[in-house]
Amino acid sequence: MINLKKTGDTVFFSTTPRIFSSFSVVGKKEGRGPLGSIFDYISQDSLFSQNTWEKAEMEMSKKAVQGVLDKTNLMPEDIDFLLGGDLLNQIVVANFVARHFQRPYLGLFGACATLGESLFLGSTLLDGDFGDQVIAFVSSHYQTAERQYRTPIEYGDQYPPWKQWTVTGSAAFLLQKEGGSVGITQATVGTVLDWGIIDTNDLGGAMVPAAAQTILTNLEDTGRSPGDYDLILTGDLGIRGRDLLRKLLKKEGLGELDNLNDCGARIFAPDQKAGSGGSGCATSAVVLSSYYLPRLEKGDLNRILLVVTGALLNPTTSLQGETIPGIAHALVLERMVD
Amino acid sequence: MINLKKTGDTVFFSTTPRIFSSFSVVGKKEGRGPLGSIFDYISQDSLFSQNTWEKAEMEMSKKAVQGVLDKTNLMPEDIDFLLGGDLLNQIVVANFVARHFQRPYLGLFGACATLGESLFLGSTLLDGDFGDQVIAFVSSHYQTAERQYRTPIEYGDQYPPWKQWTVTGSAAFLLQKEGGSVGITQATVGTVLDWGIIDTNDLGGAMVPAAAQTILTNLEDTGRSPGDYDLILTGDLGIRGRDLLRKLLKKEGLGELDNLNDCGARIFAPDQKAGSGGSGCATSAVVLSSYYLPRLEKGDLNRILLVVTGALLNPTTSLQGETIPGIAHALVLERMVD
Repeated sequence: MINLKKTGDTVFFSTTPRIFSSFSVVGKKEGRGPLGSIFDYISQDSLFSQNTWEKAEMEMSKKAVQGVLDKTNLMPEDIDFLLGGDLLNQIVVANFVARHFQRPYLGLFGACATLGESLFLGSTLLDGDFGDQVIAFVSSHYQTAERQYRTPIEYGDQYPPWKQWTVTGSAAFLLQKEGGSVGITQATVGTVLDWGIIDTNDLGGAMVPAAAQTILTNLEDTGRSPGDYDLILTGDLGIRGRDLLRKLLKKEGLGELDNLNDCGARIFAPDQKAGSGGSGCATSAVVLSSYYLPRLEKGDLNRILLVVTGALLNPTTSLQGETIPGIAHALVLERMVD
Repeated sequence: MINLKKTGDTVFFSTTPRIFSSFSVVGKKEGRGPLGSIFDYISQDSLFSQNTWEKAEMEMSKKAVQGVLDKTNLMPEDIDFLLGGDLLNQIVVANFVARHFQRPYLGLFGACATLGESLFLGSTLLDGDFGDQVIAFVSSHYQTAERQYRTPIEYGDQYPPWKQWTVTGSAAFLLQKEGGSVGITQATVGTVLDWGIIDTNDLGGAMVPAAAQTILTNLEDTGRSPGDYDLILTGDLGIRGRDLLRKLLKKEGLGELDNLNDCGARIFAPDQKAGSGGSGCATSAVVLSSYYLPRLEKGDLNRILLVVTGALLNPTTSLQGETIPGIAHALVLERMVD
């Protein structure tokens, strides 16, 4: 067993940046899932009235950013920074959405961990006093992701049971210096970890080591035990990846971890033919936005360790025989009692 | 004429983060250019002893990061954050380099403006007291970029004179809270601007409006006139793009701007058949690292406005009829007299 533990990489925010509001948009399949009607906008049209899948994803992501602005009665000019990313080559979705809103923009790529990166950097921009309001947004779309990472779905490629289903969705988060009942108190930025997985249908498995290491680092740095979190919530390991992570962390001495779950394992029902569960940047984003943030706000949960996971391959690296590295960024989200 | 001026988007750092050291690696063609022998490492082998172009770019970028560590007698564990990016799909070069160094890693994508993004975010992480030492690194490679953005060079595609030549190179910058004689005093993060350019061979032209807007914003926010900078240095507009920018800014009332130049216009000589000049993330990075930082350190220059430019397309957006948006991030680099 490789020793996963690392220390000293956790940032403690001094001012507690807040997730003030958020807005989630999903497709039809996601809207029919077990979390279903909680999302802010469920489209029955995966094309979002566009004529290509890529433009559909841009439209969806724009809806999410506009949605959080509308919800909070803000104008684009009220926002100091836009932080966005997605899975497409050259993150064109985020770039084109930023074109629409005309605010200082920083494009990020952390694969499905991009949400973690954007929430972390957004928090540092607020905590370091570089701005007052930041929007972090991410997206993914089943059709664009399949076409780009595997083959266009029209080819009818085989679908092994451990493969995950890319979530069609987008969420935008308004981060503010104060106000709102959810604070980001600490963050653990991950390192790129690679245990030699080569199956590009097993991205959940490829991300497990990074998730484990980031969780162990966070616990050591904060002096907490797993039970100090009401929930340890990973991004998109899927059902199989989540179960592998539980096993790995048990071997590392953390016990049964009944309080560990995964957004990808929650978003689809077993009868929805989504393999091992949801994947893609949107998975953690829409589930956090519409399911877990409200539970934090209501007080059903008081402290979550959000561990957003990403697989850092592209089709060329896999064809050239490279293994699949993973990364995981953790954020401690706490209910703020004023 | 669209009114380009915007205000209020410039960040003033309170602690003046420093560019303490840097290391540049280039290919054979760049080493034969007019700046030639100044680079830290010039490879005669564009493959960097690898068997694919993508692996070559990874090896080159790893050399740059290791180079700056060696130069400063630091170990990877001394570094708080790695901030990296490149032009390849899913920024696999930066991801795989980060895998090697095992430090908290944030992947960025701003096309050729990625250097500006990494220096800005690195500065905020230091200024906001989230770390003491950060490495920002970027790369580009002629062969990987041609294959991905246009066609593999073996196809012998036509090369119009206004097209630029992607620089094969990488540079890594060590940012520290103090020490060293070059400080980053302000930064202007750009918005995504699109004036409807559709020619994917004219990326320099597509970035000109964004460069102009960021320069005008910086001047207005800082209350400076162009002459307050010893040099306004754009990233990779190329010769034609630089000349277009001078014309555009003259129309905006800034005069002749003899102190405006472009890294892409400087890196190749006219007889090197590089079209309108260099492009790619590495252009501004290696020229800044090996030519302009030393001039700042020596006192030949005291204050530079570095304006790093990027074109935010991908081949799919162009095929789907989209225009080419641009972005530019500016950093004020000043000689610190202690």
